[in-house]
Amino acid sequence: MLNNENYTMLCDYYELTMSNGYFRLGRGEEITYFDVFFRSIPDGAGYAVFAGLEQIVDYIRNLRFTEEDIALLRSKGQFDEAFLEYLRHFRFTGDIFAMKEGTPIFPGEPIITVRAPAIQAQLIETFLLLCVNHQSLIATKASRIVRAADGRPVSEFGSRRAQGASAAILGARAAYIGGCSSTACAMVERDFNVPATGTMAHSWVQMFDDEYTAFRTYCELYPENVTLLIDTYDVLHSGVPNAIRAIKEVLLPKGIKKYAVRLDSGDIAYLSKKIRKMLDEAGLTDCKIIATNSLDENLIKTLLSQGAQIDAFGVGERLICSKSSPVFGGVYKLVAIERADGSIRPKIKISENIEKITNPGYKKPYRIFDGETGQAIADYITLADEVLNEKEPLLLFDPVNTWKHKTVHNYKIVPLQIPVFLNGECVYELPDIEEIRAYCKEQLSLLWDEVKRFDNPHRYYVDLSDRLWTLKQEMLRGRVE
Amino acid sequence: MLNNENYTMLCDYYELTMSNGYFRLGRGEEITYFDVFFRSIPDGAGYAVFAGLEQIVDYIRNLRFTEEDIALLRSKGQFDEAFLEYLRHFRFTGDIFAMKEGTPIFPGEPIITVRAPAIQAQLIETFLLLCVNHQSLIATKASRIVRAADGRPVSEFGSRRAQGASAAILGARAAYIGGCSSTACAMVERDFNVPATGTMAHSWVQMFDDEYTAFRTYCELYPENVTLLIDTYDVLHSGVPNAIRAIKEVLLPKGIKKYAVRLDSGDIAYLSKKIRKMLDEAGLTDCKIIATNSLDENLIKTLLSQGAQIDAFGVGERLICSKSSPVFGGVYKLVAIERADGSIRPKIKISENIEKITNPGYKKPYRIFDGETGQAIADYITLADEVLNEKEPLLLFDPVNTWKHKTVHNYKIVPLQIPVFLNGECVYELPDIEEIRAYCKEQLSLLWDEVKRFDNPHRYYVDLSDRLWTLKQEMLRGRVE
Repeated sequence: MLNNENYTMLCDYYELTMSNGYFRLGRGEEITYFDVFFRSIPDGAGYAVFAGLEQIVDYIRNLRFTEEDIALLRSKGQFDEAFLEYLRHFRFTGDIFAMKEGTPIFPGEPIITVRAPAIQAQLIETFLLLCVNHQSLIATKASRIVRAADGRPVSEFGSRRAQGASAAILGARAAYIGGCSSTACAMVERDFNVPATGTMAHSWVQMFDDEYTAFRTYCELYPENVTLLIDTYDVLHSGVPNAIRAIKEVLLPKGIKKYAVRLDSGDIAYLSKKIRKMLDEAGLTDCKIIATNSLDENLIKTLLSQGAQIDAFGVGERLICSKSSPVFGGVYKLVAIERADGSIRPKIKISENIEKITNPGYKKPYRIFDGETGQAIADYITLADEVLNEKEPLLLFDPVNTWKHKTVHNYKIVPLQIPVFLNGECVYELPDIEEIRAYCKEQLSLLWDEVKRFDNPHRYYVDLSDRLWTLKQEMLRGRVE
Repeated sequence: MLNNENYTMLCDYYELTMSNGYFRLGRGEEITYFDVFFRSIPDGAGYAVFAGLEQIVDYIRNLRFTEEDIALLRSKGQFDEAFLEYLRHFRFTGDIFAMKEGTPIFPGEPIITVRAPAIQAQLIETFLLLCVNHQSLIATKASRIVRAADGRPVSEFGSRRAQGASAAILGARAAYIGGCSSTACAMVERDFNVPATGTMAHSWVQMFDDEYTAFRTYCELYPENVTLLIDTYDVLHSGVPNAIRAIKEVLLPKGIKKYAVRLDSGDIAYLSKKIRKMLDEAGLTDCKIIATNSLDENLIKTLLSQGAQIDAFGVGERLICSKSSPVFGGVYKLVAIERADGSIRPKIKISENIEKITNPGYKKPYRIFDGETGQAIADYITLADEVLNEKEPLLLFDPVNTWKHKTVHNYKIVPLQIPVFLNGECVYELPDIEEIRAYCKEQLSLLWDEVKRFDNPHRYYVDLSDRLWTLKQEMLRGRVE
């Protein structure tokens, strides 16, 4: 069970040196605000899908330093005893606001905002990012692959190529959120209620004296769940004829109509058409053809455009590692410090790399929907204390090319973040995975098709309120803290 | 602690359906042989580095189905009660032979060979592959990056971008095996004795009213471990001057000579030269310059070829996800079945994709070293019962282009696999990580430079013995089982 693990020490060592510094300076309890956001979408896509919040909630709940942790830190010779004693009682007491899992997300907007004493906010950086980056990466990739499959089920098959055990398990969870129909990994059903499926590997076929016997035996053992793997020896001359014979002899007499063959190598476009013809000529029009073998959204699209006869896909390494774009670049940046009087002092990070400049201040992200069509028009980031009124026209303008602007009238505005922790207490009831998956599907349906285009998608607008934009410009111009 | 986790259910569901089938057919105890091997090296490199064995040992030792696991399987309605009862007492009783961690490995050779009752050998497939694929991927990438850095230390910095928690932790372990000097992740030092290091993030600088105060405060807090991050506002106009001032005022009076600045954005080649000049002109010739920011072996090589003034590197996402080549394609294939009389029946998997054809039989891999230079000449795979004699000349020939051959005379032959489990007992004393890392370094020094070339490396020979080659040809020609 991955839940209830204690990952407190899964932090960058500098979180600890900085925290010890804040502690020694008497600043550990100063309230700070950090945003999690990302800068660009994997695969040059038009949207990403947020996932990983459930694991953040588990992590925060289980945050505590063990005696072993403290002994290790003491051995480093850098930490004050008083700080180590403080760590012994360390708990998270702050607030976390986050978008819901399954939400389509865009560069530059705060997906998560942490408001917490400096040490606490600093220490959780690494693990929060790890959760957001990993699962959003896989959910985003799954969403692309599922859309490419155009209604055909896509099963996640990648455990063996995953980058570690949690990549296998939580990657499968994220893939399901992004739209996959099932996983091959048994543990994921046990721990996350994602349906696990599977039938046979090549080794099954090899265990028998001949392929026909292997197929026939399987049909006899599991008549209700037959998927015969037909490429152990020779697809067209051995695999398909043996499958047809076994299905006809064992399944048809039982009246079974649900069965399939699986193709895992060779020219899948060509072979699938040949196989379809052979199956149909044998009267097995009910037989589904499942394709696997290093597939992703691009291969699936070309297969379908070639008229490949495929009813379902199994996708492995290119999904579970997001092979074509394996990094989701979420970052965690200090955006404000609260003064003793409760007023908020915004902070900015300037950089030679323009895209590394942050949006300062304690902020709230909103999504604006067209009042008529219900489609999402833009996201809109304000300072937290701004009050929006749907009755009034809203001016949207591009934060870089400010002459690009428009005023929307008939619109609905929805806050994107919800409170997850308040004063260290979890106030969010975690939805089950079916609910997250359905939410993701629904929210994606509210994006323009142009944003969901695979190549050169329309850039979805993420705009700043006038107050926030002005604050940022002033801070940039003054290069002030 | 990742050790002592129970990952029994981290298997593909088809392992369970096949196993239930073997059980019902009374074939569950038949002895089978499976090989773990891979087909191509990430990044088109000339060698890979094997890692992940320690986690396989932990996994095998902790193999057991819990009542929760069995309840889940029962709910699927596909498994016999007798099989579920069998799983309740399931333990691994077979043999596992494996190469040592840190060994340079090549396509087509058995890295691990499992000899076990069919059900046991089948069930461990997914997790074995996951361990080999993940850690070998990262160790291989680390080895490339460390070689590109040409003697400069490389620290692993990638936790926040890792594909899940075990990718962060075990990826850092593998990176250390591959030659990295340290990790940023505190948990990795606690659990795997990889030294963890770190100083400050941009947030430290932002927490103070000005950059100078941030630097000065850090120097006062940790005079022995100063690395100042100089790109929060403006590297050349603010970061470097403030760093020089803080170092001069706080560190030099204490006689401290070990300190550094870190650059995390901008044109690193240009900036590092400017920084070096400014530091030297200020008399801080001892000050090291550390570069981070989406580096990998290619960027490091071009930086160094441009004369960048960098003393150490921190490498994040491009190492921890092996971004340019994020999949290690290890597979697990049935190669033989043992008959009741103890004789071994070889098995082969044929495929439309030539590279998916397997080497049949129970085999042993050897490495052949030149008797004079000590350099590795080739790897040589035999059937397990072949006896080699270093006193006799050895004929090596290319298994595809068989006319390419040579006879070696003065050579040493070293078996590459060692027994790890025999009859379910672990017989291998796991080396500590320093030993693995040193072994990797030593073994790499025995490979020709041409094999280690970054681009278009010489293909290292992996040859088959005459008996093994003949067996494979006969099985291919006859297409017999």
